[in-house]
Amino acid sequence: MATMIKGIAASSGISIAKAYRLVEPDLSFEKKTIENESEEIKRLHRALDEAKSQLQTIREHAEKNLGSDKAAIFDAHLLVLNDPELIQPIEEKIKTEKVNAEFALKETTDMFISIFEQMDNEYMRERAADIRDVRKRILAGLLNVTIPNPSTISEEVIVVAEDLTPSDTAQLNRTFVKGFTTDIGGRTSHSAIMARSLEIPAVVGTKTATKDIQNGDLLILDGLTGEVHINPSEELLETYRKKQQEYEAQLAEWAKLVNEPSVTKDGKQVELVANIGTPKDVEGALKNGAEGVGLFRTEFLYMDRDELPSEEFQFEAYKTVLEKMEGRPVVVRTLDIGGDKKLSYLPLPEELNPFLGFRAIRLCLERTDILRTQLRALLRASTYGNLKIMFPMIATLDEFRQAKAIFLEEKEKLAKEGIPTSDSIELGIMVEIPSTAVLADQFAKEVDFFSIGTNDLIQYTMAADRMNEQVSYLYQPYNPSILRLVKMVIDASHKEGKWTGMCGEMAGDETAIPLLLGLGLDEFSMSATSILKARSLISKLSQEEMNELAEKALNMRTVDEVIELVKKAVN
Amino acid sequence: MATMIKGIAASSGISIAKAYRLVEPDLSFEKKTIENESEEIKRLHRALDEAKSQLQTIREHAEKNLGSDKAAIFDAHLLVLNDPELIQPIEEKIKTEKVNAEFALKETTDMFISIFEQMDNEYMRERAADIRDVRKRILAGLLNVTIPNPSTISEEVIVVAEDLTPSDTAQLNRTFVKGFTTDIGGRTSHSAIMARSLEIPAVVGTKTATKDIQNGDLLILDGLTGEVHINPSEELLETYRKKQQEYEAQLAEWAKLVNEPSVTKDGKQVELVANIGTPKDVEGALKNGAEGVGLFRTEFLYMDRDELPSEEFQFEAYKTVLEKMEGRPVVVRTLDIGGDKKLSYLPLPEELNPFLGFRAIRLCLERTDILRTQLRALLRASTYGNLKIMFPMIATLDEFRQAKAIFLEEKEKLAKEGIPTSDSIELGIMVEIPSTAVLADQFAKEVDFFSIGTNDLIQYTMAADRMNEQVSYLYQPYNPSILRLVKMVIDASHKEGKWTGMCGEMAGDETAIPLLLGLGLDEFSMSATSILKARSLISKLSQEEMNELAEKALNMRTVDEVIELVKKAVN
Repeated sequence: MATMIKGIAASSGISIAKAYRLVEPDLSFEKKTIENESEEIKRLHRALDEAKSQLQTIREHAEKNLGSDKAAIFDAHLLVLNDPELIQPIEEKIKTEKVNAEFALKETTDMFISIFEQMDNEYMRERAADIRDVRKRILAGLLNVTIPNPSTISEEVIVVAEDLTPSDTAQLNRTFVKGFTTDIGGRTSHSAIMARSLEIPAVVGTKTATKDIQNGDLLILDGLTGEVHINPSEELLETYRKKQQEYEAQLAEWAKLVNEPSVTKDGKQVELVANIGTPKDVEGALKNGAEGVGLFRTEFLYMDRDELPSEEFQFEAYKTVLEKMEGRPVVVRTLDIGGDKKLSYLPLPEELNPFLGFRAIRLCLERTDILRTQLRALLRASTYGNLKIMFPMIATLDEFRQAKAIFLEEKEKLAKEGIPTSDSIELGIMVEIPSTAVLADQFAKEVDFFSIGTNDLIQYTMAADRMNEQVSYLYQPYNPSILRLVKMVIDASHKEGKWTGMCGEMAGDETAIPLLLGLGLDEFSMSATSILKARSLISKLSQEEMNELAEKALNMRTVDEVIELVKKAVN
Repeated sequence: MATMIKGIAASSGISIAKAYRLVEPDLSFEKKTIENESEEIKRLHRALDEAKSQLQTIREHAEKNLGSDKAAIFDAHLLVLNDPELIQPIEEKIKTEKVNAEFALKETTDMFISIFEQMDNEYMRERAADIRDVRKRILAGLLNVTIPNPSTISEEVIVVAEDLTPSDTAQLNRTFVKGFTTDIGGRTSHSAIMARSLEIPAVVGTKTATKDIQNGDLLILDGLTGEVHINPSEELLETYRKKQQEYEAQLAEWAKLVNEPSVTKDGKQVELVANIGTPKDVEGALKNGAEGVGLFRTEFLYMDRDELPSEEFQFEAYKTVLEKMEGRPVVVRTLDIGGDKKLSYLPLPEELNPFLGFRAIRLCLERTDILRTQLRALLRASTYGNLKIMFPMIATLDEFRQAKAIFLEEKEKLAKEGIPTSDSIELGIMVEIPSTAVLADQFAKEVDFFSIGTNDLIQYTMAADRMNEQVSYLYQPYNPSILRLVKMVIDASHKEGKWTGMCGEMAGDETAIPLLLGLGLDEFSMSATSILKARSLISKLSQEEMNELAEKALNMRTVDEVIELVKKAVN
């Protein structure tokens, strides 16, 4: 058994806690002939009782944490467990067919599920789902395996999972979850972004975490190096407790910078701003010293819903963010859906290469109704703060012109309706497609600002899917070709008196910051938790030296040469 | 019914001939109870007789055109048709169960197929496939529909299909197929490339050809405009017969340039070379005045096989091409598989975005055995002509260095084995990934030449899958950003005394040629049939004027402005 596994350090910090496996258990079983039917029926009832007691606990937790609304579903499950019309046929089957309880349970419930599912009645179809859920729990009891239930976690744990979906993370009790580690994913995967937003350490892409770690194993999770130690020695624990203290002291040191400007040691000031997904994230952004919002990913307003969000719903969200940011700049990106991000109520065509497909502004320029609603909501909210709007996945000037025309039309309509809107909303674009970077000098004559989206820009420039492990060696943020494109964009904006930000992962990266500073980047947008560290780093750098560094990097031949160069210059 | 449909002009020329639908017929049927069993059995036998007569015809054609080897399969089919052990049970079923012949045929053959398929014997499993094929033919007879058989075409036709796969086109009798039109595809799809290689007109991507055109309809296929006229009036026929004559006169005029150099009117000489797929294509290249081969797509040597081609097999192919080209340059691209090109015997991982995935050099640097075999075969053949080798999908200098190191190792090994190889083989790269274009000045210090692959370069630069119709508006060869990347590559090569070619579709395009000339391109590689036309066009252009034109185009903002500019300048 491994005592240490290594993955990708996805969110900083060190945690020490017991492992909680959030892994679907294996519920497979064989049909067996049994000898003693009454013993088998007893086994069934023990599993039923266990399931009841679990469900009652879950129900209580749900009532407390999620409200009685959400708790009601567990009442329904308890009803199923107590239903003699379901239990008796199972007992009958065990007695007459002399089969094991697992098999009798499966056969009987299959029949009920199939009857309920065929009914033309929404209520009855939901009962089928209830039976499925309850069956899973009884089966787990019979097979002596545990169904993880993150909402009942009541002590400090480190979650171990194959991967974490948005709905998994939504269920986690943030008081007790002190970190997580996953088998798959990279620095830009959902789970990694989520960990940084929750401000807990995370190590992703370990490949074997769920294989190597058992429930209750004591773990050291090092989100700084990507190491996960399993049942470490007391000596190692001691070392890590010290590291933990040092890291916390470091955090306290950085915290002093929360209200400071972001300035190099030779006096060049830049802006450090936060990426957010929902109005709730604003608090964390401010706490971490954000000077504004550099990227409000509006997709989250469209997710976990059954239909498109209304203008009113969006208006409230934008207004809340703008008000809470109290006049600081807020850059909102219009809907960026498609690619790997889907909405259940907005079916898109199946595509062979979704990353090169019908997404973001491409979709919004066809479904202009969606774009118009969003722009109206933004325009109405614009009087509550300092709003800037940017369009994602712009590949040609024609696309920007179309989007801008729609914006102006909606502004005009609102004016006619007597609804006030701000006259100083800047309209910019994401630069995440190579064509746009190469033609930035022409774009700069028409847009108000650029925000470089490095995650996509890198994958298109290198022609390598950033989610595909087989070509992950080509995801090279410091490749001289990427730096040159960044330089083209920044220079183009400055020549027209405009500004350039960056809202991809790269903007918060320690190796990238010296280079980006040297290339002249104006605004760095990152996970809130990276801001203070970045501000501290910038305060130790000299703009003049970074200019020289960047100039050299632009003329390197390979990514390794660039990394070497930065290491030498900064350490 | 439509009398004219429009698609993409994929291969030049005008054809007038009857339609031949290469479309799988609908063979669905319902189970029926019949009254008169003996009448139904007669129906069955009529279908059997018809199938026999068809198979005999096909067999004869196959014997004549493909050899007795390939004809043997039809003997096996005829045996099945004459097998009383298969026919009697069908008759029996019709009699006893009073079911229609279709149903009796299906039930009986299903049983035989399932028995044969379960046998652990290759020979018997092949019999199952034979029964399937024969059943299809009998069913078609019963249902009065036709199974198309392209190998039996014996009069001039225009093939109408949803799409044409490589194996479809291989079966076409080139003497009688005078053109084709398809529902799907674009200028760079397989069927389009194939049409240009066969030198027959083609109109692809009509969306509705198979819906609008019936077998035997008289068609005018205009591969110059993309129009397909269905059952045209005598007047229209007359007009097109004239156009056809004019086009042929034009071809005759161009043919005079077959041995001429490719020179602008002010004396700038460039190279016009051909894209080829197999040694067979050399003849057409030379006939059309190619000054060399700019792209030998070696994938075809790897296709339609059960295993990787041996070194010896490849050596013979490369040697043949080099010898036939008699000292003219031959640029061979190493294996470019993956993406949308697959090999049955080389399973690749399923990918979410195959165009951004594990393909071409990425695959070959992991499966170095494949690359080594190919390079050995090329090295051995190198003494028979003027060989240049290029690697596809190079994104970083590291990749080129690895590939070059392998090349040098194999050269060294051959030297030790006493096998002679040429010492003047140039090693180049395809420039089809934005990062490589942007960093071309650094690449130019290490590679001997560049060949710009525009099909991929455009799709990555615009982040738009060129096969995806929903974003096809973004496939913009004349977008100023693409022209700038092309310019970077050409300038970088010239600065180091190297040369740049282009082997994508764009190199043979009338609107692109003036621009490419102005950008300084040295070598234009295209479908053989485009060469003479391009040579004629170039002879009418002035290098000086094209330089000015290109300079202006580089500073345009949109693709429409560039197209407008070229139109004005060239007309």
